[in-house]
Amino acid sequence: MNTTTNRLSGIAASPGIAIAKAYRLRQDRFVPSADKAADPGAEKERLDAAVAAAKTELEGIRAMTEAKMGAAKAEIFEAHLLLLDDPDLIDGILERIDNDGATAEYALHETANGFVELLLAMDNELLRARAADVRDVAGRIMSRLRGLDYAAASAISEPCVLIAEDLTPSDTAQLNADYVLGFVTEIGSRTSHSAIMARSLEIPAIVGAGAAAGGIETGATVIMDAVEGTVIVRPREDELAAYRARKADYDARQAELRKLLHEPSVSKDGHRVELAANIGSVEDLQKVLANGAEGVGLFRTEFLYMGRGALPTEEEQFQVYKHVLERMEGKPVVIRTLDIGGDKELPYMKLPAESNPFLGLRAVRLCLDRPDLFRTQLRALLRASVHGQLKIMFPMIAVASELRAAKQLLEEEKAKLTAEGRAVAEGIEVGIMIEVPAAALAADTLAKEADFFSIGTNDLIQYTMAADRMNENVAYLYQPCHPAILRLIRMVIAAAKREGKWVGMCGEMAGDRTAIPILLGLGLHEFSMSASSILPARALIKALSREEWAAHAEAIVNMDSQETIQAFVHQHTRSDNR
Amino acid sequence: MNTTTNRLSGIAASPGIAIAKAYRLRQDRFVPSADKAADPGAEKERLDAAVAAAKTELEGIRAMTEAKMGAAKAEIFEAHLLLLDDPDLIDGILERIDNDGATAEYALHETANGFVELLLAMDNELLRARAADVRDVAGRIMSRLRGLDYAAASAISEPCVLIAEDLTPSDTAQLNADYVLGFVTEIGSRTSHSAIMARSLEIPAIVGAGAAAGGIETGATVIMDAVEGTVIVRPREDELAAYRARKADYDARQAELRKLLHEPSVSKDGHRVELAANIGSVEDLQKVLANGAEGVGLFRTEFLYMGRGALPTEEEQFQVYKHVLERMEGKPVVIRTLDIGGDKELPYMKLPAESNPFLGLRAVRLCLDRPDLFRTQLRALLRASVHGQLKIMFPMIAVASELRAAKQLLEEEKAKLTAEGRAVAEGIEVGIMIEVPAAALAADTLAKEADFFSIGTNDLIQYTMAADRMNENVAYLYQPCHPAILRLIRMVIAAAKREGKWVGMCGEMAGDRTAIPILLGLGLHEFSMSASSILPARALIKALSREEWAAHAEAIVNMDSQETIQAFVHQHTRSDNR
Repeated sequence: MNTTTNRLSGIAASPGIAIAKAYRLRQDRFVPSADKAADPGAEKERLDAAVAAAKTELEGIRAMTEAKMGAAKAEIFEAHLLLLDDPDLIDGILERIDNDGATAEYALHETANGFVELLLAMDNELLRARAADVRDVAGRIMSRLRGLDYAAASAISEPCVLIAEDLTPSDTAQLNADYVLGFVTEIGSRTSHSAIMARSLEIPAIVGAGAAAGGIETGATVIMDAVEGTVIVRPREDELAAYRARKADYDARQAELRKLLHEPSVSKDGHRVELAANIGSVEDLQKVLANGAEGVGLFRTEFLYMGRGALPTEEEQFQVYKHVLERMEGKPVVIRTLDIGGDKELPYMKLPAESNPFLGLRAVRLCLDRPDLFRTQLRALLRASVHGQLKIMFPMIAVASELRAAKQLLEEEKAKLTAEGRAVAEGIEVGIMIEVPAAALAADTLAKEADFFSIGTNDLIQYTMAADRMNENVAYLYQPCHPAILRLIRMVIAAAKREGKWVGMCGEMAGDRTAIPILLGLGLHEFSMSASSILPARALIKALSREEWAAHAEAIVNMDSQETIQAFVHQHTRSDNR
Repeated sequence: MNTTTNRLSGIAASPGIAIAKAYRLRQDRFVPSADKAADPGAEKERLDAAVAAAKTELEGIRAMTEAKMGAAKAEIFEAHLLLLDDPDLIDGILERIDNDGATAEYALHETANGFVELLLAMDNELLRARAADVRDVAGRIMSRLRGLDYAAASAISEPCVLIAEDLTPSDTAQLNADYVLGFVTEIGSRTSHSAIMARSLEIPAIVGAGAAAGGIETGATVIMDAVEGTVIVRPREDELAAYRARKADYDARQAELRKLLHEPSVSKDGHRVELAANIGSVEDLQKVLANGAEGVGLFRTEFLYMGRGALPTEEEQFQVYKHVLERMEGKPVVIRTLDIGGDKELPYMKLPAESNPFLGLRAVRLCLDRPDLFRTQLRALLRASVHGQLKIMFPMIAVASELRAAKQLLEEEKAKLTAEGRAVAEGIEVGIMIEVPAAALAADTLAKEADFFSIGTNDLIQYTMAADRMNENVAYLYQPCHPAILRLIRMVIAAAKREGKWVGMCGEMAGDRTAIPILLGLGLHEFSMSASSILPARALIKALSREEWAAHAEAIVNMDSQETIQAFVHQHTRSDNR
């Protein structure tokens, strides 16, 4: 291990500064061999010893968590301890050793997998959530069997900077923000799931730091500056002092931003816009309200469909939509209908394998292909509409005939609900995502039939550049401020204005400091972003003149490259609020 | 088998009318099991019998071919007969039976595959071409071992309409146009390789006729109208008579078109355009010259890199480019640099597997990533430039920095060649494909640095609609005449005109009868298409007024859908030449 100062750089995916000991997450993809065991008796003894050791570990973690954070936070470990005593699990493993001559490892692996599959197929949300616990406990026993320390992200109980090759959405969801002060991954991009979730959890994150990050060992002191994208391993004293000061500045700046929590989003010259939040689940609402969002600009409903064994029922969906609308207390909530396909799969739906899933049967294309699935969601949305200010949004509309077909289904379900005597709100706005270049280019036609547009820049940039946003080999083409992209945005806004419709944006670009002045200048009405970006965006907008940037924007769209445009924006915002 | 009249419809992929007996191609994807054989002696006897039967078959085919078409055409079967006596092949199979206890099927499969791989890795074109023969002969022996008739496309020796589930490019390349009067496939689209190759071979083709086409049995009389996309199985006498008359009309019309062979391509009101051909290999030149092309608008060089075991050398490429330039006798030849990646793979290059290859490291992106590969091609092109009117074209340019980087490499190689005392033509035009929406949207910047544009509509439509053109589930979005696409084309032409540059088109759309009037109106200069489309396009253009269509085009780009636009064009061309 190199003990000299060591600097790495990566992509600053979620801002903040953290200084702590590193904790390297061992990500075990171990699959035991199916070979027979020589001595079943010995295997059973090994299993007993591993279970006992796991129990001792968990009791220690439970006690420490209770002492530090209270009984409620320790409950999860009670649940894990109960699993270790669960006869279905333990006897299942023992039986495999006895009857099949399996090794303890193989018996554990097979039995736990069977459990997980069974739980995921359940029609009960709580039971399904138990699958992650079974995986976690099985991983812990497996580690003891193999003589390794178990290092699940959920088990972290000391302040640390987490180091991992990559984090799955479930890894990231399990992070305890009380202890994980930040994380650094070897791979990943700004738009990978772990990066998006880090922003939602408000944990500083640096992704794509490369294989060198894999060399950071547990216990090494680490400074991570996720504003700049720098990691310093085993810093010198002077570096520690400098970064402690920087962190204090950063934290003070965050406190300043808090003062804008209940302010409107108004430019220096009095032009009002709306700053809304993107959410993926009910859990995100806490951050939305805590960061002064003026609405929800994008509720991604696919998370309702993922990580489970069957489609959600109309009633389940209704309860979630109703809850979100009620929590937002009359503020606008734009709910996007199912955007599955592409990089998001549902194992229980058996979607066709596609050579280019991003260019395939996804989102509204899939919903129109499977109207029963779609109608269920539309009914749930319509029923929830009376509980707040619902706006319905269809993703991936490319041509007007798709919008017409989707609206037709919505009207049919509305008529049925009314006939059943159910209440449905009047005048629900029905809009579309503009994320397919064709939709932007023919926005004039669509603006006649949609109540609003929300520009989905992540996909719009991907398609306009013909570059997969998850593919690092073509990451150089992901250029939000390229003139081609800005011209499409200008076309969309102009087309909507002519029909008196409003335009929002719910891609990553809406929260980007370089893009915001241009978007303000182009006349964007609603900016929807990660909750954590709202206050900095509000501060920035308060420092900008809408009139000045309207003039700048006209010049910018005629510039020749993203570099020129970025330089122009930086030069013209240097004196503004940072 | 249903013996009543049976009508199917599919996509008319290559025009023409054929009336003949059906020949159903059995496409065997059989992979034998690796299970051990019970009795190696019996396996060897089965092998001997299968080889002997294959020999008898081949001798029959050879004799018949020689009698009908002469000795030269029969040579291929001589080569196959020699393979049946090849001790390397036959002894290799016998050894596997003896030493490994393999079945005859498995031993044949493994030995033949080893041979094929060895041949494909050779640095000699002729030896590599032998791989297809080994496959063919092995397939024939395998069929005999399994008690089935062998039905390779290459073995067809009676006039027929070929029926297949699908045809690979190599299947299609092997078709003998003397016997295969047309083909019908169950799957595929207008832009699949077999469809493109059918147009290049000038064989009528209907693709995507659905599973029902699988029910057409060998020997059934079939009418295929690949102008309309209709297949009639076991037609009634009156239908036969009607289609014989229709075929006669069609053939007469083709004779009319022949008269335009040496005419210029000029509209009714005297506006001259250029009708060029797309080619994929030297073999296509014959059709190009026979159909009155005014140049080659697209030479797809990736076929030089495919179906072999290693990269082509500079000298190999030079010879091919020189040959094409010389055959075209000073007419312009646009050679596109390597467009590999996406759906085209090179096994020997070990390209990274990508989740969305159409949005990945393909074409110029890959070439800039592997400059050595690119420089070899650029040197070969520059050396060939003195042998005709070469224009070099870079595919998949999205942003100006890519064009600059590619031009830089070209300049460097030019300087090196000049320093080596090699002749390079002066003033070679260097242009780009416009197939990424970003390039169309920012064509003004690119027009300052490129000498010409060629719009690649196949990809441009795919990306603008975010719909994989090979994916049938989203085929409804492949809309060449959608206003979004036409607006992009208009932008590109306008941007080029401002810089005094010319614009061509080399996608499928350039040869489409509905698109041509609009493209003429929008000011497209060069239309590059399958050679077989050139004369019909010339006849059509002669019947159109450029001035009228310029006015129509302005109205058309503001229409609301492809359907409206198509109806408008059909209405306004009804009186014109068909």
